[in-house]
Amino acid sequence: MPQLPLSPGSTLGILGGGQLGRMLSQAASRLGFDVVILDPQPDCPAARVSRAQITAPYNDPDALQALGRLCDVVTFEFENVPASSVETLAEAGALVAPGPTALAVAQDRVDEKTYLNAVGAVTADFAAVATLDDLTKAIDKLGLPAVLKTRREGYDGKGQVWIRDAADAEAAFDAIGRRPAVLEAAAVFNRELSVIAARGHDGVVAVYPLGENIHANGVLKTNLAPAAVDAKTQARAVEIAAAVLDGLDYVGVMGIELFDMGDGVLLVNEVAPRVHNTGHWTQDGCVCDQFEQHVRAIVGWPLGPTEAHARIEMTNLLGDEIDQWRALAAEPNARLHLYGKHEARAGRKMAHVNRVLGAA
Amino acid sequence: MPQLPLSPGSTLGILGGGQLGRMLSQAASRLGFDVVILDPQPDCPAARVSRAQITAPYNDPDALQALGRLCDVVTFEFENVPASSVETLAEAGALVAPGPTALAVAQDRVDEKTYLNAVGAVTADFAAVATLDDLTKAIDKLGLPAVLKTRREGYDGKGQVWIRDAADAEAAFDAIGRRPAVLEAAAVFNRELSVIAARGHDGVVAVYPLGENIHANGVLKTNLAPAAVDAKTQARAVEIAAAVLDGLDYVGVMGIELFDMGDGVLLVNEVAPRVHNTGHWTQDGCVCDQFEQHVRAIVGWPLGPTEAHARIEMTNLLGDEIDQWRALAAEPNARLHLYGKHEARAGRKMAHVNRVLGAA
Repeated sequence: MPQLPLSPGSTLGILGGGQLGRMLSQAASRLGFDVVILDPQPDCPAARVSRAQITAPYNDPDALQALGRLCDVVTFEFENVPASSVETLAEAGALVAPGPTALAVAQDRVDEKTYLNAVGAVTADFAAVATLDDLTKAIDKLGLPAVLKTRREGYDGKGQVWIRDAADAEAAFDAIGRRPAVLEAAAVFNRELSVIAARGHDGVVAVYPLGENIHANGVLKTNLAPAAVDAKTQARAVEIAAAVLDGLDYVGVMGIELFDMGDGVLLVNEVAPRVHNTGHWTQDGCVCDQFEQHVRAIVGWPLGPTEAHARIEMTNLLGDEIDQWRALAAEPNARLHLYGKHEARAGRKMAHVNRVLGAA
Repeated sequence: MPQLPLSPGSTLGILGGGQLGRMLSQAASRLGFDVVILDPQPDCPAARVSRAQITAPYNDPDALQALGRLCDVVTFEFENVPASSVETLAEAGALVAPGPTALAVAQDRVDEKTYLNAVGAVTADFAAVATLDDLTKAIDKLGLPAVLKTRREGYDGKGQVWIRDAADAEAAFDAIGRRPAVLEAAAVFNRELSVIAARGHDGVVAVYPLGENIHANGVLKTNLAPAAVDAKTQARAVEIAAAVLDGLDYVGVMGIELFDMGDGVLLVNEVAPRVHNTGHWTQDGCVCDQFEQHVRAIVGWPLGPTEAHARIEMTNLLGDEIDQWRALAAEPNARLHLYGKHEARAGRKMAHVNRVLGAA
């Protein structure tokens, strides 16, 4: 294992070469680190701003061995990293952050919710579902409407379906391929918030101001930060973040989606053990953005400040919305962040724009 | 010639892969452009954050042909680009910005000062020196002390010597290798300022607030921006910048070093037809920094805003001053920008730090 803090000139590896890997790489290079990307897609967005790419599947043992040998520390842009890949990287001599425990918990919705409730980060009521019979019992217990989600590998609204009538239970179970699932009670919340938090190897936790999220078709559309919340709500978010990160001995940045139930009560919707779309506002709202913060955490540098100096409205540009670049380039306070994806498939995240609304 | 504005996904070429090329590349990638670097040094700092590097001398015709074919637009991180290289790039189909006129003027101190005075951007008195006899006459005309500089290829205090006694004239001429030179009268100024300005293909000019420069051993040490200047002085700087850029039909960012003579009177010390060390403060003081501004200008996008939102103290880290990274990483408002140079030779620019002093 390399000695911390890592010096500039050390090499950082990233599993995943999409926009999150790209923006992590850009932040790492600002701090003088070299970056190597592992991604099966040749010439991926992150590779084009990094020192090198290893083009191979994420579970390719030889590729992981090579990455682990090249890099002092390896991190991820997504949570569905096989535990075996993490082991291979560690065996090859790389520090891996965040660690396997955090990944394992985040990969299974039932394990995740069980963990969250155990550390006092309360979620909506839920029940594990393995069979149609489980589902029927779960509906009786939780009531309707409720949302049925696969335990593993769901994101951006994929692998989940709402059930409003008990008669639709089997159709819903079929719709998610009768895979192991979790039924979640509908939380009647005022709005969805999210908080970006970081924890260092030394256990220090730093939490950004809450942001408010607006989704469209299950995909984040807009994020407003800092959100207009009372001190009690922000304080509760900090409490939740500290409990969740400490409990996992977490190292790096985590995105935590929350339901605002009012009066300072927050339910955790889900957590992502990585930099998060709802943290993009920090690039133009804070002096140390979530990407630099993640790099600082994993290389053992002190965490950066999390205060906001500007109010930001972050909007994702999906698919051919990227064609708006001409108009956006002419908007003085629209800060554009493009991902270098050449094919604008429908719904694909192509870029985001941070609109500076004013001083925080 | 490619059609403007260039779309995201277009390719930008940079001659020179040092820190300026590196930060230009990082800004270009944020806007969705791919970047190719031409630099004789393999694995140069800019190449490690760019899509590709062509490793060859700056005047290698085949390399320039290849770069020109790969890229929609080509720019430079330094001014000493042979005119023939620019021609080759243009022949290969690339737009080249800034153009050959600006480069030619900036490459020769006599031509530069002659041009500046012609457009009303007054400089200190000067005289061209080709022979020792010229030098003696120039000393009689301008008086002493005066500074003798080679006409071409001087930077960071290299190729220049102060003359305080007429008896030292020949020694001074020898010291600069008896090369074609210019003698400059000593300007008795209050302080040195500099201004970063940009001009687009459409002729629009955008000027950042003035910064104040503190040099050590002829190398910029610290830059404070926005500088505390009266409206008259800032207005004069804008006037000078517009005159200098318009007169060259300039496209891109230019750094202009000024002597503050008081009462709104500014003399031009020298100009650099590129992003400039005294503009690094914009990375953390403005929403659109000089690097993005240069990219916007050359690709035909509207120029970004130039207002400062924060007061910044920029300090260069030279040679082993880079070892200060541990302390700087722990300073909450110190924003580090490291260049990825692995060998910390004495006096080499390794990084800079922007200290956020407060809101502008």
